[in-house]
Amino acid sequence: MLDASSTLSSSGYNHPALLKLMTNPNNLSTFVNRPALGILPPENFPDKLTESLLSIAPSGMSRVQTMACGSCSNENAYKAMFIWYRNKERGQSGPSAEDISSCMVNQGPGCPDLSILSFTGAFHGRTLGCLATTHSKVIHKLDVPSFDWPIAPFPRLQYPLEEFSRENAQEEARCLEEVEDLIVKWRQKGKPVAGIVIEPIQAEGGDNHASADFFIRLRRIAAKHGCAFHVDEVQTGGGCTGKFWAHEHWGSDDPADIVSFSKKLLTGGYYHKEALQADKPYRIFNTWMGDPSKNLFLCEVLNVIRRENLLEEVARSGKALINGLYELQAQYPGLLSRARGQGTFCAIDVRDDATRDKILVKTRDKGVILGGCGDRSIRFRPALVFKEYHVHLFLNIFNDVLTQF
Amino acid sequence: MLDASSTLSSSGYNHPALLKLMTNPNNLSTFVNRPALGILPPENFPDKLTESLLSIAPSGMSRVQTMACGSCSNENAYKAMFIWYRNKERGQSGPSAEDISSCMVNQGPGCPDLSILSFTGAFHGRTLGCLATTHSKVIHKLDVPSFDWPIAPFPRLQYPLEEFSRENAQEEARCLEEVEDLIVKWRQKGKPVAGIVIEPIQAEGGDNHASADFFIRLRRIAAKHGCAFHVDEVQTGGGCTGKFWAHEHWGSDDPADIVSFSKKLLTGGYYHKEALQADKPYRIFNTWMGDPSKNLFLCEVLNVIRRENLLEEVARSGKALINGLYELQAQYPGLLSRARGQGTFCAIDVRDDATRDKILVKTRDKGVILGGCGDRSIRFRPALVFKEYHVHLFLNIFNDVLTQF
Ligand code: FES
Repeated sequence: MLDASSTLSSSGYNHPALLKLMTNPNNLSTFVNRPALGILPPENFPDKLTESLLSIAPSGMSRVQTMACGSCSNENAYKAMFIWYRNKERGQSGPSAEDISSCMVNQGPGCPDLSILSFTGAFHGRTLGCLATTHSKVIHKLDVPSFDWPIAPFPRLQYPLEEFSRENAQEEARCLEEVEDLIVKWRQKGKPVAGIVIEPIQAEGGDNHASADFFIRLRRIAAKHGCAFHVDEVQTGGGCTGKFWAHEHWGSDDPADIVSFSKKLLTGGYYHKEALQADKPYRIFNTWMGDPSKNLFLCEVLNVIRRENLLEEVARSGKALINGLYELQAQYPGLLSRARGQGTFCAIDVRDDATRDKILVKTRDKGVILGGCGDRSIRFRPALVFKEYHVHLFLNIFNDVLTQF
Repeated sequence: MLDASSTLSSSGYNHPALLKLMTNPNNLSTFVNRPALGILPPENFPDKLTESLLSIAPSGMSRVQTMACGSCSNENAYKAMFIWYRNKERGQSGPSAEDISSCMVNQGPGCPDLSILSFTGAFHGRTLGCLATTHSKVIHKLDVPSFDWPIAPFPRLQYPLEEFSRENAQEEARCLEEVEDLIVKWRQKGKPVAGIVIEPIQAEGGDNHASADFFIRLRRIAAKHGCAFHVDEVQTGGGCTGKFWAHEHWGSDDPADIVSFSKKLLTGGYYHKEALQADKPYRIFNTWMGDPSKNLFLCEVLNVIRRENLLEEVARSGKALINGLYELQAQYPGLLSRARGQGTFCAIDVRDDATRDKILVKTRDKGVILGGCGDRSIRFRPALVFKEYHVHLFLNIFNDVLTQF
């Protein structure tokens, strides 16, 4: 998405708060477009892109499947989990005659009653499969038929996380228990959970965080019950959390079975473990069409990230940003609360949604584009080149606006 | 799709059967790309694109919603039909408290048990919603959970249609009767049919045609039972049938409630009647991102089509092509059968799939790229600038290949 909240523009040059930065790292690479087309032999576009995508593959994942957008990435990741699950059930034997005839008319066993477990507040897209795992807004869901799939509570934590570690650990334990209960319940219902899908930080749902420990335990529960574990990094991937993938913060070398991503990497798609490779070609269809410039774009973006140590920069700016937000919420206790973030992927809650919306308008008038998320949160989504001094410029402007409330 | 079968390359210049034509009408417009970016004020991209899309709107449809690909076009068209159907049921009253709370957990009445009626052999895409209406290949469907939605038989006609009009009329009547039965049955099951979706020519399913009368009666049945009527022109739209939309051949001024299209028009999307406008913004979300060049591209493509009378050309080449195929199947009765087509959107069946595949390889060796569809059909999908003399060149090459069997 390229909505206003996906870039936070603020600047410190000739006309502070008016000039916009080229904050999108994609912009840095547009120059290489023209030569690229001449250099690269057209035949190996997909291979080449796969090559550069694999250079940033999550730990334990050796395969990548490109897709056109975040929705088809998740839809196809779900399909890969369903196929994997059924192949596991069948063992050596191929699909039965009954599998084959029943699937053509949408019936079991060919179209099995499998489910994907998702979380309250999740957003994974708006096509019917994705939508069955999305639970962020009524307006997205109302009147659209869905699947009877299990929905577990996402931990509702208190921030700053470190200050409430005991309470938060309890809340996370409650949610994990519920996950196991649901897996058992849905298996008994005859709708086994083929996969669990989760965002490392729930974005649309209001920037909800959970601890590394929570995700690692969740991944273990998935493995214990034979469910695939799918981490949706459509919002969080690409470096904004201070690591290339948000799940790297968990410190696990086996974080997931599937990791999906979106166009921030110039193509959507998903990484997966060897085991989740579809057993036959064309079961998962690649809608991505070769474009010679995409591979060089991506290589260049990755080069810029490495050369300019952008992930370290993000970590540094993120620290300045969250500390600034802590200070502001201490200064305006009735107005602001629950400042939270990882890298520059930050958010803060406002008293109520009307006040939140007014603050967004006033900061925009001063040249800073912020976005809303959840019921009454403000979210920060600066691009990777947002430096510490931009943070301070922004915090000054934000403070100016807040004094008016 | 840009698969091999979507362009039929053959040429008659210096190196017949080796040179490829720039047969894709999109190519004609690539020249205007650069100036476009400078001329068009960025603010009205979406409006501008809508303007040119509306200049080719199907009869009775005043609205267009742009989308990124064929799958999201159909997924969102289905959502529009579900929302329309539920609003009709609710009348003046808004969603109930129960609607709102239940939809967040995938349950009724908020996520209602509504269905879309589709046809055997149909292909409408591969995301989970689309896939529930796709019935062309086992490999697409196997192991993926689906909805219990009704599937009616698509008429299995005899070709040439004119020669078997009595038999075909009987077969179509049988299918229409089945449609009405299914609508009643699914209503009784508590899964009312909100919409009927159909291709004007079933493409992936093997190039299956039906008469104008069949579609008009089907549309009437939809109206009689309060179901929306959705014509999927993802494959057939854009002029290949000799009219811009294949449904224009039906001669109806009220052909449908929704018509979906794909990237052939540089963007995907769907047209719809006023009544199917979502009642609130953001219920149908537009993933299309403004690109200034797209509108000019589309205008230019439409200009070329008009200026060069390409639709008439297609009708003329199509006639030459189908007549040539009739002659070949008379000449090779054991090998070829069921030649059929509209415009240059033609197909012919081969004895068996192994022979079909061999013919495809041999014609490719001679520089003509054809595609397979269905079990043992060969399909023709030349671009709009494929002229009558290309047809004759092609038929000669094809004949050369066939003599070897
Ligand atoms: S679903 Fe259409 S682009 Fe992804």
